[in-house]
Amino acid sequence: MSRTLISVSTVLAMALGASLATSPALGQTRTDPKDAHKSSPGGRYEPRMDVLPGQGMKQPGAEPGVPTLTAAEFEDARKVYFERCAGCHGVLRKGATGKALTTDLTREKGFEYLRDFITYGSPGGMPNWGDSGDMSPQQIEVMAKYLLNEPPTPPEFGLKEIKATWKVIVPPERRPRTKQNAINIENLFSVTLRDSGEVALIDGDTKQIFTIIKTGYAVHISRISASGRYLYVVGRDAKINLIDLWMAKPDTVAEVRVGLEARSVETSKAKGWEDKLAVAGSYWPPQYVIMKGDTLEPLKVEGTRGTTVDTQEYHPEPRVASIVASSHKPEWLVNVKETGKVLMVDYSDLTNLKITTIAADRFLHDGGFDRSGRYFLVAANARNKIAVVDTKESKLVKIIEVGQTPHPGRGANFTHPKFGPVWATGHLGSEAISLIGTDPEKNKQYAWTVVQTIEGQGGGNLFIKTHPRSRNLYVDTPLNPDADVASSIAVFNLDKLDQKPEILPIGQWSGIAEGTKRVVHPEYNKDGNEVWFSVWNAKNQQSAIVVVDDKTRKLKTVIKDPRLVTPTGKFNVYNTQHDVY
Amino acid sequence: MSRTLISVSTVLAMALGASLATSPALGQTRTDPKDAHKSSPGGRYEPRMDVLPGQGMKQPGAEPGVPTLTAAEFEDARKVYFERCAGCHGVLRKGATGKALTTDLTREKGFEYLRDFITYGSPGGMPNWGDSGDMSPQQIEVMAKYLLNEPPTPPEFGLKEIKATWKVIVPPERRPRTKQNAINIENLFSVTLRDSGEVALIDGDTKQIFTIIKTGYAVHISRISASGRYLYVVGRDAKINLIDLWMAKPDTVAEVRVGLEARSVETSKAKGWEDKLAVAGSYWPPQYVIMKGDTLEPLKVEGTRGTTVDTQEYHPEPRVASIVASSHKPEWLVNVKETGKVLMVDYSDLTNLKITTIAADRFLHDGGFDRSGRYFLVAANARNKIAVVDTKESKLVKIIEVGQTPHPGRGANFTHPKFGPVWATGHLGSEAISLIGTDPEKNKQYAWTVVQTIEGQGGGNLFIKTHPRSRNLYVDTPLNPDADVASSIAVFNLDKLDQKPEILPIGQWSGIAEGTKRVVHPEYNKDGNEVWFSVWNAKNQQSAIVVVDDKTRKLKTVIKDPRLVTPTGKFNVYNTQHDVY
Repeated sequence: MSRTLISVSTVLAMALGASLATSPALGQTRTDPKDAHKSSPGGRYEPRMDVLPGQGMKQPGAEPGVPTLTAAEFEDARKVYFERCAGCHGVLRKGATGKALTTDLTREKGFEYLRDFITYGSPGGMPNWGDSGDMSPQQIEVMAKYLLNEPPTPPEFGLKEIKATWKVIVPPERRPRTKQNAINIENLFSVTLRDSGEVALIDGDTKQIFTIIKTGYAVHISRISASGRYLYVVGRDAKINLIDLWMAKPDTVAEVRVGLEARSVETSKAKGWEDKLAVAGSYWPPQYVIMKGDTLEPLKVEGTRGTTVDTQEYHPEPRVASIVASSHKPEWLVNVKETGKVLMVDYSDLTNLKITTIAADRFLHDGGFDRSGRYFLVAANARNKIAVVDTKESKLVKIIEVGQTPHPGRGANFTHPKFGPVWATGHLGSEAISLIGTDPEKNKQYAWTVVQTIEGQGGGNLFIKTHPRSRNLYVDTPLNPDADVASSIAVFNLDKLDQKPEILPIGQWSGIAEGTKRVVHPEYNKDGNEVWFSVWNAKNQQSAIVVVDDKTRKLKTVIKDPRLVTPTGKFNVYNTQHDVY
Repeated sequence: MSRTLISVSTVLAMALGASLATSPALGQTRTDPKDAHKSSPGGRYEPRMDVLPGQGMKQPGAEPGVPTLTAAEFEDARKVYFERCAGCHGVLRKGATGKALTTDLTREKGFEYLRDFITYGSPGGMPNWGDSGDMSPQQIEVMAKYLLNEPPTPPEFGLKEIKATWKVIVPPERRPRTKQNAINIENLFSVTLRDSGEVALIDGDTKQIFTIIKTGYAVHISRISASGRYLYVVGRDAKINLIDLWMAKPDTVAEVRVGLEARSVETSKAKGWEDKLAVAGSYWPPQYVIMKGDTLEPLKVEGTRGTTVDTQEYHPEPRVASIVASSHKPEWLVNVKETGKVLMVDYSDLTNLKITTIAADRFLHDGGFDRSGRYFLVAANARNKIAVVDTKESKLVKIIEVGQTPHPGRGANFTHPKFGPVWATGHLGSEAISLIGTDPEKNKQYAWTVVQTIEGQGGGNLFIKTHPRSRNLYVDTPLNPDADVASSIAVFNLDKLDQKPEILPIGQWSGIAEGTKRVVHPEYNKDGNEVWFSVWNAKNQQSAIVVVDDKTRKLKTVIKDPRLVTPTGKFNVYNTQHDVY
């Protein structure tokens, strides 16, 4: 079993890149993101990355002794920076997973240093953009000069701008009063087709593609309204689609753009608030937007700029990394990356907005509830921590040290034979899967500590998954540099966690010959007896979804279709609706 | 009775100016703020305006077609802008009481327009800086060029910078255990000596100056801890002094600078929290800082940058205008000017900080509680509104239209013969005093409406005052351009509010010959039977405090002392401690 550690910055750079590209380390050529859409089938959504994060970003004024860029060079550099660098270093270069690149630092290093660093990378995780052939020496020179100048600030995107993008395609009164299709909605899967800017709705019973809907670019997640009727998806370009699953052919009934770059959307799930509101959090501007649930009408824009939780200094770009909804209280948990704060936003009164700000730790990413729904566990990824929030008492419970760069997705809940209820997270930066006790009532001695660490195939894990009716735990490693590891899944027996996992060669089972066949995002069907995996190839290659029988761990079926371009996240309606993970 | 309306921008420019200067309209010469401290008696606190709002503010880079400034010109312009312009137009020029001066607007207008506008002013309220002789043509040219360039952003001031300024001069364990002086502390007055950067502690019984303490520049307010022992003062330069009134000679026991410019300080007043915490709000950076009550140790820095309440667009400079403490709940009400939000900050748990954000209206300034202490009324001054917050239910009650530019200070509470309990505010922009019903229980039909408007002497009012044991209401007009109006007080009989007020020539009673003798800030003694007025002359002129017998409305005594330089605000310990206003 390969346990090669992959550098965190590298995998994040890859995960955040504009399109999936085969790593040069694997001896293949990277697809140029700028050309990627050209090879896509006709009629698809045109990725809008070229205008992100905002057209008309103003070139800062010239300063004495600093190399100047022409307007064209500036515009090129701005795009490259956004596509390749901003994910780790931040739009304003304040640093996050990557180091800060503010001009006080870059000017101290100087032009040659920057040029060489971009060219050759570093063992600390900086990709070797020149050496790998991804950037030409000319491009790198421009980038080094760009970094010596002040970063341009992308434009704001307030209520006026948001409203200008808001469209209600089918108003609520013209929507069906009863479900108009014969599909078993509870077992429907909403599948992100990353690079084509679409989601595929796939019937979990028949495995047929029911419909494909144009969305924003690289849909990050799908969420289901409390009633199960409405599907919300958010593109990386901050476009939200509201899809009505009751229509004869489900389609977008409303859309809005909440910013210039976004990752998260959620709906109101508390009793009395079902389907009433939606919320979306953006990377730029750093803010979240509360909307009407059935029309996406923007109601309230709340900024997240403020002080960091530790040094208490102002941060200009605290990005909303993820949002989850409590089922018990009318509250969303908004996780702000750079400041390290969990905002418990009470949505029951927007005029008198109550927010409890939990001081967690910096670089919050994603997380999920324990099985009781009372506790929320969220990763502070660059700090190697999991923060636990008691949503009943609105209090921080504990901050737990785990492995390198935890990436829980929403995590995995199960009952451990020895430690009782646990919540588990994998790690981008290591092979470890950390199991954390979550039962302070009956298993107090194990609560909020890492009770066991098991070892998967290696670093580059993004998601782990189990189901209340299953005793299997699936662990993906799509970003592992070893192609065999990237295209296979480790599965653990929850009753025998000291045993090595079985390795399922999902990529191989797909029958696809070409590409790295990265296997990503295990997701159960509603009944919890089969698990779906995306076999994620580059945009101009064949991809697939592989369905495995959970009991036998054998191949059940492969879903292949020319329309399944770059499938990544798959969200089963019932499991997403009821927080089953 | 003169009712000359004074332009709001003019009076604010004057009120916010670096030093009191006699208006050129009155035929006298304005004191050059830069020279003001030279004429002050030796050994006084040196105003630090020359380093505000931050040394080392970075000159933005040159842009094509925009006139450049030398480093020296930039530094001069930056200072002038801060001293003369920022109060109305904002440090980042986004506008507040004055118009926005962002480069998209200034470049459209062009150099000549700006130069002429600065020179000649406007009927809308822009002072005629050139015509009045305050600025030379050369200075104005530089200012016009400065406005065509991007505004420099002052530096941030986070926990590290705050801590670096923090000094505990006498630690709590070395302070007296019992009061070591014979003074009647409850009737002590803390008097701001504005331009000398001091407060005078004056014995309310004997009218003797007990001591003079060096503080920050232009102390904006004094606040008293819940126990009555500690006095907190905040300078315009964001310096906080903590003064122990139990010492044989009260003096500063701790100090800290919370930012680069500030206006507000408050203490924790709820049961169980007496004297435990303090909070200070700053103009720059836009933030508030929570501190230990007995040492000023900074604990938590919270930013206020965010979206405006109406257009919901991002504002980079939402200044903390004022803060008041609830006596009923562990809560401060932090009033954020540019976004128009009242933040109800629950200070009982700083790790899990609960804040209810009340959507009031833009340009919040100051305000006070109704007599029950349940309702908080705050002015949205440039919107001519008073917002009412129910602090028990943490809800906005109503937004009430009043006269032009309300300036309540903390307002005045009394029982109206017809309308029951009311809270009153004067106005900077008009002669009106608005009376608002505050009793939704027994006088529901009058609650939260302007039940009566009475007419004072004219615009330029800053403070009005009454006392539970009095039936007089005093109204000052220190910023009225008419010297007679500025140096006198209107006093109303609360039982006969339809009668014209009596005019008390306080300035004349002071016996001072020179200067405009602006009369400002009525304040009662503890017993409510005498009222103190500041007779506020320029720094190089004689000033005084005039004490009036409340019952007879006759002169009781004049406090004169060479040390009483520019007295403005006077805070009676008991009344401030118990929110008697």
